[in-house]
Amino acid sequence: MDFAHSAAARDTIERMTAFMNEHVIPAEKTYFEQLKRGEDWTRWNQPPVMEELKAKAKAAGLWNLFLPEPEYGNRLSNVDYAPLAEITGRSVIAPEVFNCNAPDTGNMEVLVKYGSEEQKARWLKPLLDGTVRSAFCMTEPGVASSDATNMQATAIVEGDEVVLNGRKWWSSGIGHPNCKVAIFMGLTDPSADKHKQHSMVLVPLDAPGVKIERMLPVFGTLDEPYGHGEVSFTNVRLPLSAFIAGPGRGFEIAQGRLGPGRIHHCMRAIGAAEYALELMCKRAMTRVAFGKPLAKLGGNIDVVANARMAIEQARLLTLKAAWMMDTVGVKGAMSEISQIKVVAPNMATQVIDAAMQMHGGAGLSEDFPLTALYAYTRVLRLADGPDEVHRLVIGKLEFKKQAAKFGVAL
Amino acid sequence: MDFAHSAAARDTIERMTAFMNEHVIPAEKTYFEQLKRGEDWTRWNQPPVMEELKAKAKAAGLWNLFLPEPEYGNRLSNVDYAPLAEITGRSVIAPEVFNCNAPDTGNMEVLVKYGSEEQKARWLKPLLDGTVRSAFCMTEPGVASSDATNMQATAIVEGDEVVLNGRKWWSSGIGHPNCKVAIFMGLTDPSADKHKQHSMVLVPLDAPGVKIERMLPVFGTLDEPYGHGEVSFTNVRLPLSAFIAGPGRGFEIAQGRLGPGRIHHCMRAIGAAEYALELMCKRAMTRVAFGKPLAKLGGNIDVVANARMAIEQARLLTLKAAWMMDTVGVKGAMSEISQIKVVAPNMATQVIDAAMQMHGGAGLSEDFPLTALYAYTRVLRLADGPDEVHRLVIGKLEFKKQAAKFGVAL
Amino acid sequence: MDFAHSAAARDTIERMTAFMNEHVIPAEKTYFEQLKRGEDWTRWNQPPVMEELKAKAKAAGLWNLFLPEPEYGNRLSNVDYAPLAEITGRSVIAPEVFNCNAPDTGNMEVLVKYGSEEQKARWLKPLLDGTVRSAFCMTEPGVASSDATNMQATAIVEGDEVVLNGRKWWSSGIGHPNCKVAIFMGLTDPSADKHKQHSMVLVPLDAPGVKIERMLPVFGTLDEPYGHGEVSFTNVRLPLSAFIAGPGRGFEIAQGRLGPGRIHHCMRAIGAAEYALELMCKRAMTRVAFGKPLAKLGGNIDVVANARMAIEQARLLTLKAAWMMDTVGVKGAMSEISQIKVVAPNMATQVIDAAMQMHGGAGLSEDFPLTALYAYTRVLRLADGPDEVHRLVIGKLEFKKQAAKFGVAL
Amino acid sequence: MDFAHSAAARDTIERMTAFMNEHVIPAEKTYFEQLKRGEDWTRWNQPPVMEELKAKAKAAGLWNLFLPEPEYGNRLSNVDYAPLAEITGRSVIAPEVFNCNAPDTGNMEVLVKYGSEEQKARWLKPLLDGTVRSAFCMTEPGVASSDATNMQATAIVEGDEVVLNGRKWWSSGIGHPNCKVAIFMGLTDPSADKHKQHSMVLVPLDAPGVKIERMLPVFGTLDEPYGHGEVSFTNVRLPLSAFIAGPGRGFEIAQGRLGPGRIHHCMRAIGAAEYALELMCKRAMTRVAFGKPLAKLGGNIDVVANARMAIEQARLLTLKAAWMMDTVGVKGAMSEISQIKVVAPNMATQVIDAAMQMHGGAGLSEDFPLTALYAYTRVLRLADGPDEVHRLVIGKLEFKKQAAKFGVAL
Repeated sequence: MDFAHSAAARDTIERMTAFMNEHVIPAEKTYFEQLKRGEDWTRWNQPPVMEELKAKAKAAGLWNLFLPEPEYGNRLSNVDYAPLAEITGRSVIAPEVFNCNAPDTGNMEVLVKYGSEEQKARWLKPLLDGTVRSAFCMTEPGVASSDATNMQATAIVEGDEVVLNGRKWWSSGIGHPNCKVAIFMGLTDPSADKHKQHSMVLVPLDAPGVKIERMLPVFGTLDEPYGHGEVSFTNVRLPLSAFIAGPGRGFEIAQGRLGPGRIHHCMRAIGAAEYALELMCKRAMTRVAFGKPLAKLGGNIDVVANARMAIEQARLLTLKAAWMMDTVGVKGAMSEISQIKVVAPNMATQVIDAAMQMHGGAGLSEDFPLTALYAYTRVLRLADGPDEVHRLVIGKLEFKKQAAKFGVAL
Repeated sequence: MDFAHSAAARDTIERMTAFMNEHVIPAEKTYFEQLKRGEDWTRWNQPPVMEELKAKAKAAGLWNLFLPEPEYGNRLSNVDYAPLAEITGRSVIAPEVFNCNAPDTGNMEVLVKYGSEEQKARWLKPLLDGTVRSAFCMTEPGVASSDATNMQATAIVEGDEVVLNGRKWWSSGIGHPNCKVAIFMGLTDPSADKHKQHSMVLVPLDAPGVKIERMLPVFGTLDEPYGHGEVSFTNVRLPLSAFIAGPGRGFEIAQGRLGPGRIHHCMRAIGAAEYALELMCKRAMTRVAFGKPLAKLGGNIDVVANARMAIEQARLLTLKAAWMMDTVGVKGAMSEISQIKVVAPNMATQVIDAAMQMHGGAGLSEDFPLTALYAYTRVLRLADGPDEVHRLVIGKLEFKKQAAKFGVAL
Repeated sequence: MDFAHSAAARDTIERMTAFMNEHVIPAEKTYFEQLKRGEDWTRWNQPPVMEELKAKAKAAGLWNLFLPEPEYGNRLSNVDYAPLAEITGRSVIAPEVFNCNAPDTGNMEVLVKYGSEEQKARWLKPLLDGTVRSAFCMTEPGVASSDATNMQATAIVEGDEVVLNGRKWWSSGIGHPNCKVAIFMGLTDPSADKHKQHSMVLVPLDAPGVKIERMLPVFGTLDEPYGHGEVSFTNVRLPLSAFIAGPGRGFEIAQGRLGPGRIHHCMRAIGAAEYALELMCKRAMTRVAFGKPLAKLGGNIDVVANARMAIEQARLLTLKAAWMMDTVGVKGAMSEISQIKVVAPNMATQVIDAAMQMHGGAGLSEDFPLTALYAYTRVLRLADGPDEVHRLVIGKLEFKKQAAKFGVAL
Repeated sequence: MDFAHSAAARDTIERMTAFMNEHVIPAEKTYFEQLKRGEDWTRWNQPPVMEELKAKAKAAGLWNLFLPEPEYGNRLSNVDYAPLAEITGRSVIAPEVFNCNAPDTGNMEVLVKYGSEEQKARWLKPLLDGTVRSAFCMTEPGVASSDATNMQATAIVEGDEVVLNGRKWWSSGIGHPNCKVAIFMGLTDPSADKHKQHSMVLVPLDAPGVKIERMLPVFGTLDEPYGHGEVSFTNVRLPLSAFIAGPGRGFEIAQGRLGPGRIHHCMRAIGAAEYALELMCKRAMTRVAFGKPLAKLGGNIDVVANARMAIEQARLLTLKAAWMMDTVGVKGAMSEISQIKVVAPNMATQVIDAAMQMHGGAGLSEDFPLTALYAYTRVLRLADGPDEVHRLVIGKLEFKKQAAKFGVAL
């Protein structure tokens, strides 16, 4: 048992941390000044500074690090990549800088594993280059998407075409001006086995019948220029080559897609919590009330101690889940992946909330990044499966394991 | 001991509930359509429908109900008014409709109790009529305002004038186009007794030297058209008659001002929680996953039960605090008032958060009022004293009481 | 709405408090010295001081106060009796002193309401006089008793006799040397309607076939001289007059029996918590570490404040439940009764646990009453229905209420 | 980063698990039958089966595994030993079987590191052989021992003797018939530097002036045959060779003594929690209410999932603390050691409490080991420093670290 990072991880952590401090954090102010925000999402822009940062990150070899496949330039395992994801959690603009942001990472993984050569050439290449962006259209407004079999959108084969119909929402990143393609998931064959009924289809956003209806606010913010879109698909006709890996393989692909993404989300949440703890300490040490720094008043030191313990535990669990993905695969790490999906975002929202409280009213304003971090991590308690579904998974696997031990049938 | 509302309270509850259902709730959509939002607060407007609602409420005798003084038209005690405040917690536009919104209520109370005849004629009258609105300028950006003696703004007597200097923030309501006056609190005489150094001064917002610097967002929202302002006061010169009750009485006035306001805030928070519980139940009963309504899945029924228990307890405690204010006064109810100030907003944020979770992604969007209610109640954990300060008050009073019992000195 | 106790309640509270301080608390030491403890329950005794205390309480008119029926000497409503139950929560020996201890109170209520004249003469009279004690045999070791329809013991009519068979446990008080009778609940007619299958039967403990198998420890204590017994009933034959109210009325009687008992349990738990808070404060004010009393260290004052808020809320909710029982009856107060049954014992265990922690190692020893109070209140999270079942009741009633409001069917 | 146990650890885990299942668990019943319990601690005995088990463990090479020094037969690092400590947490009799129980382990470590040759020959040898047992006398009844500088007992040099006076309590294990020696800590020189005033002294329990006053119950249990003693020392005269490492080195020794002991305690607490989770699952899968196993009712599956997540996190944090002790030493691991000291016992009490609740009344009886495990882990929230002191340590170290980062002085 060895809790030290590998030499490769240590080296990249060091370089990435330096890059964040030198380039990313100082550019945040410019980024938000260049960014056009507001309800009319068609006016959103890519702030020029982002393209400059991306070029620098690429030049520094800090690009596409999430991909373990050596042919795409990175040899980091999940457990080695995890601390890098944590670092990017300290800035909402960082993931794009390193081309490591959701849902592009998951979409690229899907194309690496399941894409045809044509699909790779047309979409994977520019995604890897960072010249286009993508969306993932799975969740639907009309049904409880925590149960994926509720899905009502369709991807029906008609002759040599696939026809898409339905309404999706929470399609994150779809508002970005560079977003050109989406992976759409829909029902193809209701008569097939339960997990072979659905397909994934690559849809260019300019295909006739695709309409972005609106952008959904989250805790009052639209997350410009990414956005969370509600999108309608009306008789969208595409060639059969638009299927990823062929009809009926949607669940199979979805299953594999989620593991690494959850590690990334959780590590970013941990990075956000760590950042909030730093801000909390700084505030506690420098703000004075009743003649003392807040750090010396009442239970404030306990708040800091509790935050430290919660962060350490969540991080170790997430690293272990990553290590299990590397050693026994997604299936073997299923309980652990669900565990971190519950633990990390809950921990992060609590730590960030405590940091807000330590900041007084300022903590709720935009003078500090805390409400933005809160919104980001609060979303994670629902995105990629709500806490409730993950607890169910954990509990079921636990009962299964124990039942085997006791020879009990449940 | 009698937990039934008085006949007067029951009657007003009934009429107000009917008015809410007939007039206020159905007008919300129109209100927000008429409302001009955005970062440029000088463009904010009073939506015409609000004035129509106010006229109706006045005609229905549902106006200024917060004031216990019979000469101002209401004979309701605090404990009788409390359930009315709860009802208004169900709609963010309701408090203004009934002329019962902070900080106007607190400011009117101050003028009723401490205002000169001139001040009453100039400011109390139009406030009671609902033709102007007001702000309260106490909290400062540079210091921890949880300790009021930190206050740095000044209200210095020079000849027959008082001169105001300093910077205030979280001046709520100051962005409203009808907001014409603020109560400013500042240091007058540092050589006086600790609680006689500060004064309250009535400042017309068009007085030279008053400048609204910006509006502060709270969890990403600006709360248009009310806003939370940061305001600078630079050599603002006013006649000595602008002092409320004379120089040095700021703390005395502040003390009395806070009791009823905390009851109102807490009851509105309870109303918000009750509303969130309703929405949670409705969602749980109508949304289906894994073949069952959410209400029948896992621990969801426990979530509902926990919310119910938390709301009931917070409401009873708040009503008791109101009853104590009526029977033994603010001073005798000091622990109870601090208790509800901790209990009610914390309970409300937790219930509302649980309601969000039951709604899935939709709960975080503006399709439901939950994030707005969350932001409103989250602010209350800081406004009018953070939880930490109130816990300190409760703990100290408890030790004092117990010390007397045991004959121990602390 | 009036939070003041009635004059009758106030008077009795005053007299009972005085009696507790003058007689009960000072007698505790003697009581435990006179008490014979140990695993051999047949050697347990009634400490003589208890009979002296009972005589004094009777003489002082502080006797059988739990009974609202005026013919039995008390005119206190449930809401007026509740604070008296709280007072008795401060001493584990107090309830018997005032003849107000479970399960005798519930058993007496059953006999008052459902007993035949013969049953009243034989058992109610001596119970009211405090010359005999009783047990209640409902819970069974073999099945989950949270679901009463699981019950497997039988009370079968054979000719002019009823024959009892089965095994019961957690029959509290059955180890007391004065315990002479038990109310036994069993299945009489499996073909009847679901809630008319069971009966209650009065069983003299010396009836052939009744055997106390052992006493169950709770958190390591046997609760001498009361005990929690496991009892077997083997072909116990009794005349048909032993049925209470006749065969098949067990559930009907059980339903009515539980309401007041839950109020009593909860108020005693609140009394225990209030006592623990007193001890916690005393310790915090008098124990010094790092040069300061514990009261001034870290978050200890928050611990005290949190305890105060939790106690106040639980007490108000319990009083309201009692008031509802008085005004709308057990059925109308069903949700509130389940709410207090969850809230009060959980609150009490938490407050007592915090008090232990403030006492350091001493808090876990018998130098302080805290572990005894903890055990008593921890049991209440299971006795008379576990938290889980009460949450289910609360949740279902909430859904029902909301469903009616929204016109939704669940 | 590698979460796999080393080959040596894996091998020992396997052998120890097998030994537990084959020998220890099946012997528990016999052990408790042979054990003489009761208030008269002088009648306590060593159950013969324990000596048989010890002989078997020694023969199997599962003996003294806690000692990393190879000369004493074990080459396991702290991180490799930790999972073995966890295994012993499943049975209260296991630690002694493997000669790995507190306080003997800590005392042996002290003698290994600081003992003179004479001390090693006289006490370390028989302790390593398991023929005698020992106690540790540090905590005092009269003062808050969380602040060790409060200590009032004295170890004064008079000529060629050291004279001990004072009263100690919570001297665990001192009631065991084999307990022959204690390490006593007391004040030697109040004029020395703050951390050089105290000494540790080896005291044979039969030395004149040593008197065991009583055994302290913990949650109603005396922990026979170990016990927690209150001991008075009255003019106990010993040769100067009884000092460990000489006068004034008490704090230095205490500091080093605590690290590994805390790992052991925490890992045993985790083992207890893991065992409670097993029992909880078994009960949930086999007990039926309302027509379903408890596992399928309400939020029970969430309870199981929450327990799993809490255990995993606490274990990883404890293993990391052990690894840090191995790699950067006790001083470098100070925050982590305090963190696990808070996290593990709190987690364990919560998981065990949830397991009790799942068992209904039976969970509170001695039919299941849950209350014993609860008492054991509840004690750990106070022993070796209460939670409050450890939180203080964590918070201070955090502030120190952050202050360095921000260039802030606190």
